[in-house]
Amino acid sequence: MIRSVDARTGTVVDDVAPPSTPEQVDEVAGAAAAAAPALERLGRPGRATMLEAMADALEERRDQIVATADRESALGTTRLGGELTRTCFQLRFFADVLRDGAYLEVAIDHAGPTPMGPRPDLRRTSRPLGPVAVFGASNFPLAFSVPGGDTASALAAGCPVVSKVHDAHPATALACAHALVAGAAAAGAPAGTVALVFGEVAGRALVTHEAIRAVGFTGSTSGGRALADLAARRPSPIPFYGELGALNVLVVSPGAARARTFEIADGLAGSFTLGVGQFCTKPGLVFLPTGPDGDALALRLEATVNATAGAAMLTSGIAAAFAAGVERLEAAGARVLARGGAADGPTSQPPLLLAAEATSLVGPVLEECFGPVAVVVRYGALDELRTLVARLSPALTATVHGEADEVDLLAPVLDDLAQRVGRLTWNGFPTGVAVTWAMHHGGPWPATTNPLHTSVGAAAIRRFLRPVAYQDVPQSLLPPELLDSPPPEHLVPRRIDGVLVLPDAPAGAREEAGDV
Amino acid sequence: MIRSVDARTGTVVDDVAPPSTPEQVDEVAGAAAAAAPALERLGRPGRATMLEAMADALEERRDQIVATADRESALGTTRLGGELTRTCFQLRFFADVLRDGAYLEVAIDHAGPTPMGPRPDLRRTSRPLGPVAVFGASNFPLAFSVPGGDTASALAAGCPVVSKVHDAHPATALACAHALVAGAAAAGAPAGTVALVFGEVAGRALVTHEAIRAVGFTGSTSGGRALADLAARRPSPIPFYGELGALNVLVVSPGAARARTFEIADGLAGSFTLGVGQFCTKPGLVFLPTGPDGDALALRLEATVNATAGAAMLTSGIAAAFAAGVERLEAAGARVLARGGAADGPTSQPPLLLAAEATSLVGPVLEECFGPVAVVVRYGALDELRTLVARLSPALTATVHGEADEVDLLAPVLDDLAQRVGRLTWNGFPTGVAVTWAMHHGGPWPATTNPLHTSVGAAAIRRFLRPVAYQDVPQSLLPPELLDSPPPEHLVPRRIDGVLVLPDAPAGAREEAGDV
Repeated sequence: MIRSVDARTGTVVDDVAPPSTPEQVDEVAGAAAAAAPALERLGRPGRATMLEAMADALEERRDQIVATADRESALGTTRLGGELTRTCFQLRFFADVLRDGAYLEVAIDHAGPTPMGPRPDLRRTSRPLGPVAVFGASNFPLAFSVPGGDTASALAAGCPVVSKVHDAHPATALACAHALVAGAAAAGAPAGTVALVFGEVAGRALVTHEAIRAVGFTGSTSGGRALADLAARRPSPIPFYGELGALNVLVVSPGAARARTFEIADGLAGSFTLGVGQFCTKPGLVFLPTGPDGDALALRLEATVNATAGAAMLTSGIAAAFAAGVERLEAAGARVLARGGAADGPTSQPPLLLAAEATSLVGPVLEECFGPVAVVVRYGALDELRTLVARLSPALTATVHGEADEVDLLAPVLDDLAQRVGRLTWNGFPTGVAVTWAMHHGGPWPATTNPLHTSVGAAAIRRFLRPVAYQDVPQSLLPPELLDSPPPEHLVPRRIDGVLVLPDAPAGAREEAGDV
Repeated sequence: MIRSVDARTGTVVDDVAPPSTPEQVDEVAGAAAAAAPALERLGRPGRATMLEAMADALEERRDQIVATADRESALGTTRLGGELTRTCFQLRFFADVLRDGAYLEVAIDHAGPTPMGPRPDLRRTSRPLGPVAVFGASNFPLAFSVPGGDTASALAAGCPVVSKVHDAHPATALACAHALVAGAAAAGAPAGTVALVFGEVAGRALVTHEAIRAVGFTGSTSGGRALADLAARRPSPIPFYGELGALNVLVVSPGAARARTFEIADGLAGSFTLGVGQFCTKPGLVFLPTGPDGDALALRLEATVNATAGAAMLTSGIAAAFAAGVERLEAAGARVLARGGAADGPTSQPPLLLAAEATSLVGPVLEECFGPVAVVVRYGALDELRTLVARLSPALTATVHGEADEVDLLAPVLDDLAQRVGRLTWNGFPTGVAVTWAMHHGGPWPATTNPLHTSVGAAAIRRFLRPVAYQDVPQSLLPPELLDSPPPEHLVPRRIDGVLVLPDAPAGAREEAGDV
């Protein structure tokens, strides 16, 4: 039985659903496959309306969803209210992406002569891949779960979604699914557009089900790797988009340590303990300069962490995994610099600041420890900093704090970091992932399973699209965006005979953002 | 020893190179990794110049390359001369893609307020993945081998290329590599930009080498699957882009069979025997209507095939595999309708036209048989045609011949086919893949290992790029295309605050094409 557990007390509140049987998985996946053609036929305008109706339906259930999510995740109603705002914003943002239409990457090459002989008329657009399995994350029960970014981008693409419910928030998942189903129905989308399955066995059955054409996953490296291997071993392999673990580094330059000692220390403490450290973009490794400025920054950081109270983590399993991870760090030579206030409740953990020598920058010290911990490593000269950076595994983000007069000195460090991460931040903190056109939330393995793709922002839709070229096909058989003269609602940016051509009135942009 | 063999006589002409040792693979991959930063720093203009210099260098060696390729492939100097033209065109086309710069997908979101709080300045571009391993195909010793589309698109992206030489044309590979290396040197590209390894063991070592960041492959389903599995099982999995086998269907409507009986029969015979049937886009399965018009078309096809002479295939191994494939088809119930003229030489095979019942459309009849064979299946009503189409595996292409007054009737068939293929052709033949902006050469498994990507056309570059987002990064540390005011050569199409903005003078387009 999948149960709803109070994250603060560890007590079972509700039986939500039994694990889905293989027959149920088969039924749900089959219904998704049956829904796919009608969902594609809704078209860009129809699916934009659907996503907006889903956002409206989530808003209508705001109080219930936020309260349920708070009970199941202990993340607090303020954060979860903001997360629901972000989630609804994200659905509406993908409605904008649909109306803009550039994501189709329409290209038209008219027939003509070439050095190799005559060329036919060729027109390319993008079509949905088919049903998508979505594995949500424990740490974002809304924005990266049933109604999250994978779901929004897959539905926008025209792919029905079967979501494997995270065991940490099944009642939240159910409440959100009701909203999505209501929104789909209100917009005339087919039954089977959104569905849930429960339990790990059902999750694996989904990844290997013939009807499923792609998988979106956010979670641990081990869990993601296991499912990615399943997807790769299928008789018909399918794309697996996994956002896995990341050890995100934050570098403080000598000048920044001097100029902004307290500001950086306080910002960093806030960033690595935000949401009890349960962010995929948490800065888990900090490179501070040796010397008095670095000492002062470290001392301020210690004081701030010492003054920060422990809090309930998402589940007792995650709290236990955090404790085990800290033990591994200590066994690898990291020592405690600061420990926050006494924990309150069975799933609570205090924030921790550790220190490690540059020489112990191997093994556990180079792996993510999910939770409110950061490891400080001190460096001497910039050469030593570059040596440390060279030992890092790829990650989602890297951050550098530096002063204007250090930019030239730091350029090689930033370039080394940009080779390893999907997002490089200057003089900020990485725990905020805006939902925008320019966002990239991804990175080379082990940050993700595929370095080409993002799970946040407009480009996330591409993961669920497949190009199709039409050669000499009559107008009446073409998708509307490929017509010689499309009706206004199907006029999109197109590359015609090699030249990018915009519609007369480019669709407005939703230029907003949110935090992850 | 890797030997150059005369494809017409089967005799060894030359010892080209011993199989590369693990140490040599390591050295070559290491040199590629060392070259990567300098190749990226060449920039778009520098790499465009490099690709053009490579094309020039190939042209300078035209006579030698074509003669060597003809000896090793038996494809004839006319076809290979055209293939070299196409190959050089392709390199220059990617120079145009670089100068256009839209492939970077630059997006800039300025800082500003959002419903979730303030958003930072975010700027995204695309950077090279790193060294790419390329496995060329036997059937296109130029356009899909050492100087082929994978190499051109990877180099354009800024990725050094290590090409695993196909055993069927090692001397051609060596001659082409000399040209590419000369072109790279002339353009100031680093040593290690292009290199070769020899032998299957070295190929596998390349796929699992830590320095290699992606693989491009064109070849058999079994070979591609084995290498794709190797890539997926790495400690750090990497993208594997395989173009594998495809059974491409060609459908003739009742009206088309009546109106264009001989034209379709002759075009089809030419298409499936072109290059001795050694095209990945060969129409290997033909659905003809029952009744007198279909009978007449089939008879004409039989007569044409009976009158076509056999010819040397690429290698004795491929000739033997073709014979075995035909045996499997016959064992599965296919019967010979027509057989071309007596074969001439040890690797020659005659063209074959087979017939199969709709009921035997299973197993071998639904798999590619690489070589000059097509299987005809007759259908009665359109409903029966749709039932047949529903049994097809995905492929690279599908073709429909129909008349104007049948368009509505045939629409569901075309839609069924578009679900399964990467390119849909109307009233043409699939054995021509133009190198253009709109081309898509790919398809769902088993046509390729990844349904999102093309191996021909401008979009092929994407396979070797990785998005990177820069958050609040100072201008002096940004790639030039992300600057507020880029210099003219770095002005590219950019999405600024959600609105696509074109440079004042869009780069011209090379609107040309070629045949695969």
